[in-house]
Amino acid sequence: MMAESARDAFYRISASDAEVRNETLRSLAALLEQEKETIFAANRADLEEAERENLAAPLLHRLTFGEEKLRQVTEGLLAVAAMPDPLHRTLQATEITEGLKLFKVSCPIGVIGIIFESRPDALIQIASLCIKSGNAVLLKGGREARRSNQALCALVRKALEASGLPADAAQLLETREDVSRMLREDGLIDLIIPRGSNAFVRYIIENSRIPVLGHADGLCHVYIDEDADPEMAVKIAVDSKTQNVAVCNAMETLLVHAAIAEKVIPPLFAALRDRAVKLRGDEEVRKIAECLPATEEDWSTEYLDAVLSVKIVKSEEEAIAHINRYGSHHTDCIVTENDAHAVRFLNQVDSAGVYRNVSTRFADGFVYGLGAEVGIATGKLHARGPMGMEGLTTYKYKLLGNGQLMADMKNGARRYTHRSLAENCPVEG
Amino acid sequence: MMAESARDAFYRISASDAEVRNETLRSLAALLEQEKETIFAANRADLEEAERENLAAPLLHRLTFGEEKLRQVTEGLLAVAAMPDPLHRTLQATEITEGLKLFKVSCPIGVIGIIFESRPDALIQIASLCIKSGNAVLLKGGREARRSNQALCALVRKALEASGLPADAAQLLETREDVSRMLREDGLIDLIIPRGSNAFVRYIIENSRIPVLGHADGLCHVYIDEDADPEMAVKIAVDSKTQNVAVCNAMETLLVHAAIAEKVIPPLFAALRDRAVKLRGDEEVRKIAECLPATEEDWSTEYLDAVLSVKIVKSEEEAIAHINRYGSHHTDCIVTENDAHAVRFLNQVDSAGVYRNVSTRFADGFVYGLGAEVGIATGKLHARGPMGMEGLTTYKYKLLGNGQLMADMKNGARRYTHRSLAENCPVEG
Repeated sequence: MMAESARDAFYRISASDAEVRNETLRSLAALLEQEKETIFAANRADLEEAERENLAAPLLHRLTFGEEKLRQVTEGLLAVAAMPDPLHRTLQATEITEGLKLFKVSCPIGVIGIIFESRPDALIQIASLCIKSGNAVLLKGGREARRSNQALCALVRKALEASGLPADAAQLLETREDVSRMLREDGLIDLIIPRGSNAFVRYIIENSRIPVLGHADGLCHVYIDEDADPEMAVKIAVDSKTQNVAVCNAMETLLVHAAIAEKVIPPLFAALRDRAVKLRGDEEVRKIAECLPATEEDWSTEYLDAVLSVKIVKSEEEAIAHINRYGSHHTDCIVTENDAHAVRFLNQVDSAGVYRNVSTRFADGFVYGLGAEVGIATGKLHARGPMGMEGLTTYKYKLLGNGQLMADMKNGARRYTHRSLAENCPVEG
Repeated sequence: MMAESARDAFYRISASDAEVRNETLRSLAALLEQEKETIFAANRADLEEAERENLAAPLLHRLTFGEEKLRQVTEGLLAVAAMPDPLHRTLQATEITEGLKLFKVSCPIGVIGIIFESRPDALIQIASLCIKSGNAVLLKGGREARRSNQALCALVRKALEASGLPADAAQLLETREDVSRMLREDGLIDLIIPRGSNAFVRYIIENSRIPVLGHADGLCHVYIDEDADPEMAVKIAVDSKTQNVAVCNAMETLLVHAAIAEKVIPPLFAALRDRAVKLRGDEEVRKIAECLPATEEDWSTEYLDAVLSVKIVKSEEEAIAHINRYGSHHTDCIVTENDAHAVRFLNQVDSAGVYRNVSTRFADGFVYGLGAEVGIATGKLHARGPMGMEGLTTYKYKLLGNGQLMADMKNGARRYTHRSLAENCPVEG
């Protein structure tokens, strides 16, 4: 059984030295270069089939794995290998009573199932973060990339074995039945990270007892405050909407304070129309500029397309309430020169990313300096926002004593000291 | 609707100053003292009904709320009020590009539903941690404590209002229907923490899409290594098993290395029998000392009683594999004088608490110095082990710019700096 052998592999990789895990990533980079013709051939076969099936051009582009992608992936592997070990970090140290030291120490999560979209380079990126952080991973990629994924996963397994780690720390799921079986293995699998459509993520959450991290929606807002710099506001709104319309951190709804609406909306609408954005506005917006009416449904719609809904609000409070009610808690921005307004917005908007005067398109693991991301989480537990290597770790409490008994604490023979210690956990692999 | 008004209350309490939240806790302490006769009367009514219904003595004891409990609860409130604010802490600061600063800042989770057992003092403890950390809480206590809980929750709400915070930041659920309704509110409630029996926690997990933190089991092990100090091993095993048999951090299975078994088992069994512990052993154990045979089922049983299953293992590896297979990932201890064995055990046992030479009974939020605990988590995500105030917080990313656009990053007009900053997030409420 895949999950069972992944569990065994987890116990081995979690106990391995950082240098062994880094060596795996470096030898994977070398193997990719060495075996690149095999990978390119597999990818060409995937692309030919996709063309026969008339896949849309953006999807074909995402599916392509050539020299350029190879270079990016190889560089990424070496960069992850060079990052500090995310494991065995002492997060907190406390003396509980004389001679008894408590250390909160970072450690891997366990077996992680990741379901990802059609980009084959994602397989290497995800596998590298899992290996670096001592986890075992079950990978399920898009059907249209299956030959590419098979070729790539075979090399990941070869690199693991070459460093003396179990190949089963990375396994490729091939069929829907594999996925259904995985979702039932709540005794063996610790976490599922689904990437993909909203409906797909909901399906996973509803069909598994395994904890799920991932984002179901990216309904991001820009709020142009009454004290915004109008020119900056227009630029940020245009970038947030049009820099890439098909991604989760693109703006879907724009909120404009009534006091600045007449100044900002005409030039903004002109700039957006230049970029072929279709505009929908509430009644107040349509008093200022022509556009289609926005309905209640628009406020909850993630277009992932060149469409924008626009609403005029009477106060910052109304903007915050609208975002908390209709948003997806992903990333929301206020454009303002007013510090007090910014503080209020950043504290009260209940989202993973709260921005002041910057495009929502910055919500990304690479941009945040996390090296790479396994996904963006819009839930609030464990990891929130772009999730890198650290999101793949948890912690355990190591308690080191010399025979301390609870009976002695209760009868007063010993007392609690609860002294914060400045030392790292001494017992490390 | 309770969940909806709790959500509104959350938005208000999350934006409140630390001093206001601390003031609420201090005024609650004063109110408890002032209104103690009302509370004691309610508690007496609960106790009388429980006696009529022939509740067991330990349950009656837990249900009792008198002067002593009042003093503990009041002291606890003042201690929590005096702790540093868990919110607005800058966990990480990075310059992304010139003039663009990213701050990872701690913030509350939102609306939390907590279902707890019959101790009315737990209501105050839980409510105080939630208020301190800026969350709203829906509280469901044991039916047998309902009058006490009503009296206590009324004072919590009074204290909230007295500080200008919304009373609905703490609401008491009274009926099973309230609980069923709560479990369906995944749009409004962020987290459920169930305390109680294994079956009950499983029921909650299976009947809600809201994330659940809590422990389903406490099947703790002590492993006596071949290099253990035999005298220490006996004391730790006795304390772990008998100091309190009815709690989740009591030992349920003892593993003994074959090389030390003949030395340790006879005195240990004598000591345990003195304390009326019923012993069950595998075949190898029964060659050394008389006891009932342990079956496969015993290894997975949390007795919560004066019963212990004992197994002889041939190696540390076998002990680790047994614990990872049959344990509940709560707390497990190795008794050894051998550093290499200790390192291996602490790194490879996949539990929230991994101990060396100390009783498993130390797994507790107060003991760990967390002030108090809302529960002990045996899952691996978000919080693990005893969960205090910090477990009731999450983080958000605050990104502060002056007009940065993604288009400029892509066209090379700007470059990423990814410089770690030593400053705290400047915009705080």
